[in-house]
Amino acid sequence: MDQFFARARAHAAPLGAEYAALWAAMQGASAGGRRLRPALAAESYRVHGGRDEDVSARLGGALELLHTAFVMHDDVIDHDLRRRGRPNVAGEFGRRARQEGARPPAAAAYGQAAGILAGDLALVGAVVEVASIPAAPATRDRLLDLVHTTIRVTAAGELADVHHGLGSRTPALEETLSVAARKTAAYSFCLPMQAGALLAGAGEDRLAALDELGMRLGVAFQLGDDLLGVFGDEAQTGKSALSDLREGKRTALVAYAATTPAWGSIEKHLGDPLLTSADAATVRMRLEACGARAFVEDLAQSHLDAARSLARTVGLDQAVDRVAALAASDPGRAA
Amino acid sequence: MDQFFARARAHAAPLGAEYAALWAAMQGASAGGRRLRPALAAESYRVHGGRDEDVSARLGGALELLHTAFVMHDDVIDHDLRRRGRPNVAGEFGRRARQEGARPPAAAAYGQAAGILAGDLALVGAVVEVASIPAAPATRDRLLDLVHTTIRVTAAGELADVHHGLGSRTPALEETLSVAARKTAAYSFCLPMQAGALLAGAGEDRLAALDELGMRLGVAFQLGDDLLGVFGDEAQTGKSALSDLREGKRTALVAYAATTPAWGSIEKHLGDPLLTSADAATVRMRLEACGARAFVEDLAQSHLDAARSLARTVGLDQAVDRVAALAASDPGRAA
Repeated sequence: MDQFFARARAHAAPLGAEYAALWAAMQGASAGGRRLRPALAAESYRVHGGRDEDVSARLGGALELLHTAFVMHDDVIDHDLRRRGRPNVAGEFGRRARQEGARPPAAAAYGQAAGILAGDLALVGAVVEVASIPAAPATRDRLLDLVHTTIRVTAAGELADVHHGLGSRTPALEETLSVAARKTAAYSFCLPMQAGALLAGAGEDRLAALDELGMRLGVAFQLGDDLLGVFGDEAQTGKSALSDLREGKRTALVAYAATTPAWGSIEKHLGDPLLTSADAATVRMRLEACGARAFVEDLAQSHLDAARSLARTVGLDQAVDRVAALAASDPGRAA
Repeated sequence: MDQFFARARAHAAPLGAEYAALWAAMQGASAGGRRLRPALAAESYRVHGGRDEDVSARLGGALELLHTAFVMHDDVIDHDLRRRGRPNVAGEFGRRARQEGARPPAAAAYGQAAGILAGDLALVGAVVEVASIPAAPATRDRLLDLVHTTIRVTAAGELADVHHGLGSRTPALEETLSVAARKTAAYSFCLPMQAGALLAGAGEDRLAALDELGMRLGVAFQLGDDLLGVFGDEAQTGKSALSDLREGKRTALVAYAATTPAWGSIEKHLGDPLLTSADAATVRMRLEACGARAFVEDLAQSHLDAARSLARTVGLDQAVDRVAALAASDPGRAA
């Protein structure tokens, strides 16, 4: 990653101060994560017999760059201006424009443009990095295909998530799990383990097993994140336990609650931007009383159990334990 | 392109109705262009001795997909909802959401999300298509590097263009020419000719000559587009001759005018969303009287002359003539 950004910033310097600042902001956006995806990829590569540290590092860098790209475009799509407690690319470039005297709407639009372009650059950088990993031609082609398919699945999950957020109807539980599998599990869990295994010489059967493992683990992770988003300790998660409710996020908790008689008394609060702490406490109580919390906790546990069982068969149980510990100590928000 | 979209839509079908509709909209967005970039690439490939029709077609498809990606993100950045007389991806998906009962702001945000994701998919598709063109490893690596560098230069040009549009200050003529070179010439003119030549076996000297040719041709093309955007015949260009003035586009015409005593009487109309036809006629008259029109016409001609001269040395004079004819008959808007 450091090498990638060093090269990119050297290329950017002669192309204007704004563009150079964009790369600086991108590097800032990629810093501070837990490097969950590189760690999973490196462990899978090693477990499958891979020994080339350079290959492992380059794969990890490409995966982290892909994550950065998705985060940046996700922020633009959600109109978020902050991430991990500081301005994101859009926030930073909006601020730059206001300092130059631009009016707030024009400055905000400039920030959005910067966020879109930064995501584009990270996305293309990730794919080119993947294509540049030293590997036999057939392996390289399979890896590119895997990355391409994963990016498409992620986009499908993101589109479905935004579509659910329109609130025209409450998605069924299956739909929320499908979003979790596509938007989160595919690129954050399946791809790292599959790509690491592929580069170490694993065959299609093993890739299929890792796909299943990644899906189970990723859905468990997302369900844990959904639970923490509503029931979590703000001091621990670093995120307001009101924001998921205020946004009206269509999570598995919400989908389950929608099938119970308590729904009417819960639904009216979801997506209320002025939701108070007292309202939130009421919603939490009702989500517990109607069984949604217990149901989702059980579901997360059963996915995690399945992931652990699969992980043992492929020798990735330690990696899965570390992910589970990470999820418990500090939810997906920090990944 | 047809094959690419056929494969992509087969993959999309099981991933949800919205996502399948996104691919349909993307295919619609890529249709109807003049295929300027594939034509330039095919001609350059042929002139440099390339004989593999499949290679030429795949390169052309990748370039057109890249163009589609840039157009889609450009539209999101500019908040445009129409392109070539019909709704673009954002326009189409905003309409879908409204039909489902979403409120206008939420529907518009959904449209923007769809436009961002569609551009991402086209961008990644283009890079993966480039990486999949059959070529010797060294050629393939050089091609990927060329495409990557070009995408970065295009993003730098786009960012600078949006930054100039903030109107904090009027960019100097050199800056508007640099935007034209980076945002338009690099991917639309330099890259197609360079990529075609590279795949046919041309060396670095020839790539450098084609870079210069593409820059000259692309800047001439953009200056012609700027002139038509203000002085063009609406019936012929298919675009209101008011919109560039209403948007306050920072073109070479504007940059030149800013150096003349007429500037005060021109500037006040630029970016006025309520500009009337009578105001526009006044601005046109002043842009002529201050010498801006003649200056930009001469500048465009000198770039075109330089391009023609360079084209003769590399055997691409017919291709350049066709581009020049296209620009004269139907400006960049149709490319």
